[in-house]
Amino acid sequence: MSEQHTTNEAAQTLDGWYALHDFRTIDWTAWKLLTSDERQAIIHEFTGLLEKWKTAEHHQAGSQTIYSIVGQKADIMLMILRPTMEELGEIELEFNKTRLAEFTIPAYSYVSVVELSNYLAGGGDGGDPYENPHVRARLYPELPSSQYVCFYPMDKRRSGNDNWYMLSMDERKSLMRSHGLIGRSYAGKVKQIITGSVGFDDYEWGVTLFSDDVLQFKKLVYEMRFDEVSARYGEFGSFFVGNRLANEQLASYFHV
Amino acid sequence: MSEQHTTNEAAQTLDGWYALHDFRTIDWTAWKLLTSDERQAIIHEFTGLLEKWKTAEHHQAGSQTIYSIVGQKADIMLMILRPTMEELGEIELEFNKTRLAEFTIPAYSYVSVVELSNYLAGGGDGGDPYENPHVRARLYPELPSSQYVCFYPMDKRRSGNDNWYMLSMDERKSLMRSHGLIGRSYAGKVKQIITGSVGFDDYEWGVTLFSDDVLQFKKLVYEMRFDEVSARYGEFGSFFVGNRLANEQLASYFHV
Amino acid sequence: MSEQHTTNEAAQTLDGWYALHDFRTIDWTAWKLLTSDERQAIIHEFTGLLEKWKTAEHHQAGSQTIYSIVGQKADIMLMILRPTMEELGEIELEFNKTRLAEFTIPAYSYVSVVELSNYLAGGGDGGDPYENPHVRARLYPELPSSQYVCFYPMDKRRSGNDNWYMLSMDERKSLMRSHGLIGRSYAGKVKQIITGSVGFDDYEWGVTLFSDDVLQFKKLVYEMRFDEVSARYGEFGSFFVGNRLANEQLASYFHV
Amino acid sequence: MSEQHTTNEAAQTLDGWYALHDFRTIDWTAWKLLTSDERQAIIHEFTGLLEKWKTAEHHQAGSQTIYSIVGQKADIMLMILRPTMEELGEIELEFNKTRLAEFTIPAYSYVSVVELSNYLAGGGDGGDPYENPHVRARLYPELPSSQYVCFYPMDKRRSGNDNWYMLSMDERKSLMRSHGLIGRSYAGKVKQIITGSVGFDDYEWGVTLFSDDVLQFKKLVYEMRFDEVSARYGEFGSFFVGNRLANEQLASYFHV
Amino acid sequence: MSEQHTTNEAAQTLDGWYALHDFRTIDWTAWKLLTSDERQAIIHEFTGLLEKWKTAEHHQAGSQTIYSIVGQKADIMLMILRPTMEELGEIELEFNKTRLAEFTIPAYSYVSVVELSNYLAGGGDGGDPYENPHVRARLYPELPSSQYVCFYPMDKRRSGNDNWYMLSMDERKSLMRSHGLIGRSYAGKVKQIITGSVGFDDYEWGVTLFSDDVLQFKKLVYEMRFDEVSARYGEFGSFFVGNRLANEQLASYFHV
Repeated sequence: MSEQHTTNEAAQTLDGWYALHDFRTIDWTAWKLLTSDERQAIIHEFTGLLEKWKTAEHHQAGSQTIYSIVGQKADIMLMILRPTMEELGEIELEFNKTRLAEFTIPAYSYVSVVELSNYLAGGGDGGDPYENPHVRARLYPELPSSQYVCFYPMDKRRSGNDNWYMLSMDERKSLMRSHGLIGRSYAGKVKQIITGSVGFDDYEWGVTLFSDDVLQFKKLVYEMRFDEVSARYGEFGSFFVGNRLANEQLASYFHV
Repeated sequence: MSEQHTTNEAAQTLDGWYALHDFRTIDWTAWKLLTSDERQAIIHEFTGLLEKWKTAEHHQAGSQTIYSIVGQKADIMLMILRPTMEELGEIELEFNKTRLAEFTIPAYSYVSVVELSNYLAGGGDGGDPYENPHVRARLYPELPSSQYVCFYPMDKRRSGNDNWYMLSMDERKSLMRSHGLIGRSYAGKVKQIITGSVGFDDYEWGVTLFSDDVLQFKKLVYEMRFDEVSARYGEFGSFFVGNRLANEQLASYFHV
Repeated sequence: MSEQHTTNEAAQTLDGWYALHDFRTIDWTAWKLLTSDERQAIIHEFTGLLEKWKTAEHHQAGSQTIYSIVGQKADIMLMILRPTMEELGEIELEFNKTRLAEFTIPAYSYVSVVELSNYLAGGGDGGDPYENPHVRARLYPELPSSQYVCFYPMDKRRSGNDNWYMLSMDERKSLMRSHGLIGRSYAGKVKQIITGSVGFDDYEWGVTLFSDDVLQFKKLVYEMRFDEVSARYGEFGSFFVGNRLANEQLASYFHV
Repeated sequence: MSEQHTTNEAAQTLDGWYALHDFRTIDWTAWKLLTSDERQAIIHEFTGLLEKWKTAEHHQAGSQTIYSIVGQKADIMLMILRPTMEELGEIELEFNKTRLAEFTIPAYSYVSVVELSNYLAGGGDGGDPYENPHVRARLYPELPSSQYVCFYPMDKRRSGNDNWYMLSMDERKSLMRSHGLIGRSYAGKVKQIITGSVGFDDYEWGVTLFSDDVLQFKKLVYEMRFDEVSARYGEFGSFFVGNRLANEQLASYFHV
Repeated sequence: MSEQHTTNEAAQTLDGWYALHDFRTIDWTAWKLLTSDERQAIIHEFTGLLEKWKTAEHHQAGSQTIYSIVGQKADIMLMILRPTMEELGEIELEFNKTRLAEFTIPAYSYVSVVELSNYLAGGGDGGDPYENPHVRARLYPELPSSQYVCFYPMDKRRSGNDNWYMLSMDERKSLMRSHGLIGRSYAGKVKQIITGSVGFDDYEWGVTLFSDDVLQFKKLVYEMRFDEVSARYGEFGSFFVGNRLANEQLASYFHV
């Protein structure tokens, strides 16, 4: 057993907006018991809430989007970004008090914060990165209107000889560099938002991918799996894939 | 700890139709509370939907089938193939809005895409494989009317010395070759459809087997388990086995 | 990492009747809401079904038994043996449509097939083993009326150096021989039915033990656990133990 | 891989009364809907049952006790000891048919048998241990009226180099001896009842601790965890801790 | 396999107040069915209970706090400290009998006791540490009114070469010292309460962090993860993060 105790240099992160991924299943049986008027009123209340949330986007104080999830794990995913944890809590509470929420069943959720790590950071110009417009665009992103979404949480493995957190900063940097190259080769095809969740939720990171070609999710994640970072050190939670549910599609989605 | 970082050559895949395996349990107690007329109307609505879905088959734009599952994991499995992820979402939504769906409880689902990997690929003729009729028949398959189905999801292991994704392409190819020989020895007895689900669902692949001799599922899977690919590198999810539920059997299946 | 790929000789099996273990919990609260007459009618319908199933036994085309399970995992276990998977599905469906089923909640189930492996096989006489009366008695067994039952599913481990499926046939045979000696020492005290479930259910085998002395289950399983086959290679699922619920005890069991 | 197959000498056990630990959650919402008279009648029926069960204690044919569990895992635990598995089943059935049971939700249960192993056995006098009064007192114990209870199930590990069942009897005996010394140092502070559950339930043993000082549970279990038997070979299930719920406290416990 | 059996010196602990972390989900659908008057009466009853519990704080005989949890794992967390396990049980029972509890669904709970270990202890002055005011302030803490809370349970790993409980006291002390340095560097930013749960609940410790800057939870836990104590020896359960729900916010929180 090792005689020397190791405290490795921890990665430094820049942290942006707080993120809530909120997955719900629709209780269609109860929904159908309503009259058409009631359903319309409920949709109306919900789209009003979405409009209200949108003002945050106009003030660059958050962003949100809705996707319909394929398969039984969930029917819809709300993804919400906000400057504070309180706002996430308030939005969740606000949604829970809507009439629509009565017809949804919680399926899964994820609490995290948009994160950039220093593994891939260039030298920087010595200025405050939080004032760098390129960095700001990534920490406080407007969520794209892509056709598809993919979300999964993940950990870095700490198991026997495959222990990410026992590697030196140099080893981790070198590993992340080749990993990042794969990601960059999908630029323009897949937009990736990494959110950190250490201390906030059960995995260490959430990965949210956006694309207009759903197959690119599979290609990206599969290619990365052959990279040592994922092959030896990645532990993955559930994968959710969904189709965009634009506000103007809500009426038809909920029409019965 | 390894000083050299490995990015292995990723396997290349050809990807065909998107697949939804949708397992449901019947709520027989609620079903029996209906009048015979109501039940007939519900079956009628559902078979109408099946007819509609069938037009996709006539236009070679998808395929679907229903099996009754043995044991408590589920009562029925719908397996749906379609050219796009949107269509899977629409079909799922359409089914969820049927009256029959009110009498089913989600049991399990799987989202994937029909996949051929290049491990076993021959040299090819240099042409676009997506134009090759043999390849097309496998990527866009009409689901067979076999008497039995077997479905299970699986991963390739990444654990200590048994890490598939750390093997070189040559090692993987060689391993897959002997694995494929077993599969081929069941030709004519078992039809196998591999669907890839990296980035789409919790395991990396779904395996759907069709046969007119249910025992062949056991023989095939057991024989493969002694092959190094499965023995050292296979991680398996739940297994579902079922009997064909042809459209003309639906009335009797649901008769109470 | 091994440079030579191994495809081990797979064990050969003889396969008999298909088996469904169906565990249910009784909804006593709902059951008590019925009138005594309703309850009697429901028991009557169920015992009629049991009588019908019994004709299979008379024609040596199956067998079945009922036990009450101790503890909260389930209240009753139906174990059904039939020549085909279809018949298992039909019996399950038939039971699900009974009125009694409305007062049961699915707790666990297992789908498998009675199996004899060639690990312990003697030389044989070169004839068709399926015609051998001794073999037939084991592949198509009439379930005994023993006072107690024990059921558990199990896998052979595939983990690091403890990988059953990477052992040579000779090693496995030698290991199974000493394992079988323990089993044989319980002859007359415990009757054991091994059912194979590779490709049919989540574990590789189901083990059903019958005895008139419930302590023998513990002694047998514990003694085997010190044998290398179990110690290094056994992975066990849930254990269910139960008391015989003979048909003539049903009325009293369900009496409230 | 080992060329020699090992069948280790199995530990011998003495087995006493069968044990059912039955954990339930109270449905307080439904309970409050009753009239005070109904609630009293239900408590009356239940205390009548407890009285009836107590006659077993008077005839030294069993013992039972009730504790209220702290935290959401359960509200109450019934622990029942009886000479036969049938009696456990009958008592469980009897309780399930009470009106009180309608207001409880099964939370967890454990089926086992009071066990003494020969690891710590002295030479003995050559007589039948089942006739030894000291042994009998431990195999057929009257459950104490201690203020606190702690219950947890456990396994001996079979994992890589930490495989209890691959150790020789001598090694196991030596390990258990030092383990037993820790237990003995708590004599007078903690009463421990070991029940074996191999073949009966999902873990290999249940451990039930009784004390008038709840902190002693933590001290005992924590101290043992540094002992090699637990450190390398112990695998633990859920821990339940509770306060004594004497019969005379039942009325106040259920008062709303 | 080791020939020498190890009984390591166990860490000594000082133990303070018993702790119940009680996480609940609100049933908003049922809550909204009430009249405004009913809701007010229920809140009134609940705040009355909180007032009553507060008298314990005035007598330095306990402390409690409420947070709203972000994400679907729970809606609210009650954290209760009391001198005895009985009081925790009584408070839980008292809450379960409130009308508010009818509108909550148990989500998770944790039972533990405030703990200080001797790993980091200085020499001490030889006096009774339980009389030391500094120690008492930590064993019997008044819970802070911080804006955010983070709770997670954890184990020290016992797996292959990463077995905390097989390390010598000196090794553990040395490891804990560097671990403690990280914690201390967050002094003033994060208040940490460690509660021990060996023998009381499923993990060995609960960690409750309080801060007015939610990002400090992430920074602290992430930095520690690179320290050998967490990297090699930490096993973590679910993480819960929440916003303070002061008594004066309850009315608005529950307003619909």
